[in-house]
Amino acid sequence: MPSLAAFPNDTELAEKRRLLNGIQERRDKAGKLVAGVAAACDVDQFKAPTSEKPNAKRWDSHISPESQSRPPCILKQAASHLSNPDIVSLGGGLPSSECFPFYEWSFKVPTAQHFFKDQDELEDPTVQTVTIGKHDVKAGLSEYDLSIALNYGQASGSPQIMRFITEHTELVYNPPYADWKVAPTVGSTGALEQTIRLLFDRSRGDSVLAEEYSFSTALETFVPQGIKPFGVKMDDEGLMPESMDAMLTSWDEKSRGARKPHVLYTIPSGQNPTGATQSLQRRRAIYSVCQKHDIFIIEDEPYYFIQMPPYQGNESDSVQASEDVESFLAGLVPSYLSLDIDGRVLRMDSFSKVLVPGSRLGWVTASAQIIERFLRHAEVANQGPNGMSQIMLWKLLDQTWGHEGYLKWLIALKNAYTQKRNMLLAACDKFLPKSVVSWTPPTTGMFLWLKCDPLQHPEYPARPIEEIEGEIFDQAIKTGVLCARGTWFRAEPDTPADGMFFRATYASATAEAMGTAIERFGEAIRRSYQIE
Amino acid sequence: MPSLAAFPNDTELAEKRRLLNGIQERRDKAGKLVAGVAAACDVDQFKAPTSEKPNAKRWDSHISPESQSRPPCILKQAASHLSNPDIVSLGGGLPSSECFPFYEWSFKVPTAQHFFKDQDELEDPTVQTVTIGKHDVKAGLSEYDLSIALNYGQASGSPQIMRFITEHTELVYNPPYADWKVAPTVGSTGALEQTIRLLFDRSRGDSVLAEEYSFSTALETFVPQGIKPFGVKMDDEGLMPESMDAMLTSWDEKSRGARKPHVLYTIPSGQNPTGATQSLQRRRAIYSVCQKHDIFIIEDEPYYFIQMPPYQGNESDSVQASEDVESFLAGLVPSYLSLDIDGRVLRMDSFSKVLVPGSRLGWVTASAQIIERFLRHAEVANQGPNGMSQIMLWKLLDQTWGHEGYLKWLIALKNAYTQKRNMLLAACDKFLPKSVVSWTPPTTGMFLWLKCDPLQHPEYPARPIEEIEGEIFDQAIKTGVLCARGTWFRAEPDTPADGMFFRATYASATAEAMGTAIERFGEAIRRSYQIE
Repeated sequence: MPSLAAFPNDTELAEKRRLLNGIQERRDKAGKLVAGVAAACDVDQFKAPTSEKPNAKRWDSHISPESQSRPPCILKQAASHLSNPDIVSLGGGLPSSECFPFYEWSFKVPTAQHFFKDQDELEDPTVQTVTIGKHDVKAGLSEYDLSIALNYGQASGSPQIMRFITEHTELVYNPPYADWKVAPTVGSTGALEQTIRLLFDRSRGDSVLAEEYSFSTALETFVPQGIKPFGVKMDDEGLMPESMDAMLTSWDEKSRGARKPHVLYTIPSGQNPTGATQSLQRRRAIYSVCQKHDIFIIEDEPYYFIQMPPYQGNESDSVQASEDVESFLAGLVPSYLSLDIDGRVLRMDSFSKVLVPGSRLGWVTASAQIIERFLRHAEVANQGPNGMSQIMLWKLLDQTWGHEGYLKWLIALKNAYTQKRNMLLAACDKFLPKSVVSWTPPTTGMFLWLKCDPLQHPEYPARPIEEIEGEIFDQAIKTGVLCARGTWFRAEPDTPADGMFFRATYASATAEAMGTAIERFGEAIRRSYQIE
Repeated sequence: MPSLAAFPNDTELAEKRRLLNGIQERRDKAGKLVAGVAAACDVDQFKAPTSEKPNAKRWDSHISPESQSRPPCILKQAASHLSNPDIVSLGGGLPSSECFPFYEWSFKVPTAQHFFKDQDELEDPTVQTVTIGKHDVKAGLSEYDLSIALNYGQASGSPQIMRFITEHTELVYNPPYADWKVAPTVGSTGALEQTIRLLFDRSRGDSVLAEEYSFSTALETFVPQGIKPFGVKMDDEGLMPESMDAMLTSWDEKSRGARKPHVLYTIPSGQNPTGATQSLQRRRAIYSVCQKHDIFIIEDEPYYFIQMPPYQGNESDSVQASEDVESFLAGLVPSYLSLDIDGRVLRMDSFSKVLVPGSRLGWVTASAQIIERFLRHAEVANQGPNGMSQIMLWKLLDQTWGHEGYLKWLIALKNAYTQKRNMLLAACDKFLPKSVVSWTPPTTGMFLWLKCDPLQHPEYPARPIEEIEGEIFDQAIKTGVLCARGTWFRAEPDTPADGMFFRATYASATAEAMGTAIERFGEAIRRSYQIE
């Protein structure tokens, strides 16, 4: 199997090193970051100069009337007067930090290079204790402390963590237009809800394109807002651009019952649920179709950094033990953001899959116009992510690991997932009846898509696929394993299913449990298919 | 000034003690709380038996079509199979806790009874260090740990913190109907956005009643959703029920340009921005009007526990130093929740004003029907609050302070705010020109509403109120103080203003800064009014 991205050459490696070094140079030049309680954050100050790039296109006709009508939050605006330190504020109802019952936090984390230790090794010298005080800033010990993080903030996030996120985004994706920005989110679930309110309107008859099998929670977010999803055919590389083009070219509003889609929702890497990953060539082709039909792209790619080497057929396949960060970065298949000369992409990133889901902290990247509208909604939808996560991740990522340390963490994480994937695939090789079940080894993410052939089933087509699938699911539960049903993920559930699928994940179970689980799942299939 | 609630008698004190003791008895009887990663939470198990109470009314016609159409999250539903410990899950993409780079946290907090220490006293014996490990549950050390809190959770919250919140809600509000429930929120900002999506629909021509001056961010949440706010007249006790009744009785859809309101949004205590607090009698009268016109009530009461004794005219007014928790509870003016025999109230509570805003953690209380719809939206809007805040507040509130300790914290907090309020009021007495500025000392919350008499202004009515107000605001900024402008809070900003107001807060500034600030504000007013 070919690598999904082109193999990085020396120029690309040097470019990544240049970007990495540029971050520190800019920080040194900018000097100390001064940003107190509810400080405004303009991420432009953290970006490299972009004068040679063009600005993004405007998306006025794509934006919903609801979003167009959002005023700025007047109280947050008033806080801008407070950049003058001589002004005393009797303006906003922000509690005084003397009333915060947390004086000091500390937490134990792995030092960069020594990841995946567990609790019984807490005394290990590779474990580091980091501490955050309430008044570290006043004491000159830090640029961020509990008195700031535990108070109200701005929906645009604290400048401290947003600096790291902006730099990371530039380092990894480096969008080819000038006026890109990032905004923090309460995770990609919330980011999608906000993005839908921004781009879609029920009364316009809006609809959305998605992969024919897509993340069920995303579909559940679109549908109650009156936005009808339409599924585009997929192959092993995910969404097929020719099918998408054909759908859009022949779009008939009446028979479809919806306006021609103006947005594509796609999960390009380790797609949920199919595990498929779009190659660079595939992404370019899809982007062209989007340009042709004026389609805005929502790119949901939480598994981006879990890009694994191809499966060689052995549980014990070795992982690349000593990859340097430049090679790791340059070897990643590019995000749509990196191809986005028009500024037609809103990319959703999240720390959930790569650090901890419980932080409920992620970010979106898009053009300044889109981000400004996104933030206006965030001000009333959630006020941005919580301060506890912001300061803890800042302390870990920015102050303890740094950019290179975080990239090393991502390499280690990818290696851990590669081993997990290999174990699941080895179990499938061993326990599943290949006469009726087939699969493509995933190269990104955490999902394996198991295809069961309905034609081999003794009761098909007398019984519909949904019924047989349900029977296998129930039987699997009885046998002691939970896999997700393929029909849960169908973008157009009202049409008859023409394939039978199950989604299995290697994210959470131990090697031993995965073996047991797949053995049980094999039993459930054999019983339904009446295979000895 | 009379107390807002009736003075508690012995029966009421005994009832509060009974509720407090009942919590521990129920916990002892229930035994250890077993709730792992993404465990479902049904708060009914944490409530006292409610068999003698009737159920809430149904609100089908109030609920929006969007909310009515929300399906349950299918992946979260599938997780219900995992209550059987023999089932291995390959179902949900939950990362394994071995991939979490946080091994152990600890934080320093005040012991109950010794609040408001600051960082320089960290070695004080009244400061306690509490620790949370990654695998405390497996080690038998705790009912909740980082391996659970840092993973995905349910939108219904972790059972550990929701137990505390349910018990606290029952202890303080004890709703008079049986099927009340609580749901966690990402703070009241997000709670209001979700509640509006639940109860309102643009295409129905929905509108909302609010105080004529109301929280600007709340108004900014309604308006872009196409929901028109209508302001009800206020006096020193806040919203006036007779005005509300008259408005509703004579409602003319055509001239109003909106359907007759079916919801009231009210801030009954320490109202933002006016600082007004509705007495018990006032609340009963408003509730009756809501019953008469079938109005659902959104009760936004973040300042509830900051109910202070009346201001006696001295900065140094002493505060009640040794109040017991039963008297504190029984002396609070009742929430609408406590009067809510119909189940027509959704109450929003938050830890922002009483612990730390940065936690972005609060909760709503309403009937089971409303809470179920609220949670369906939370599943796609944010997945509930972040796990970091959930476990930290649980460790502090449930495991370190307990219910009584938390109530003592609230008493101490109220006392601290009482002193702050007294300082601001003393400064106003000293520095503001009483010939043109007047105010009512607030008894709840953190806001003082300063009324400037337009009739005394040399340029009125030649210049409209909005212009004069803007001039004073700008002058105040130049002089070095930020107060919020009254017009920012007008529920119906398109009608001409008939009063001129400024909102000042005593929440954040020090005593010295408040003096300086009010002196400067006095100067700005004198200059505009041309007073020597």
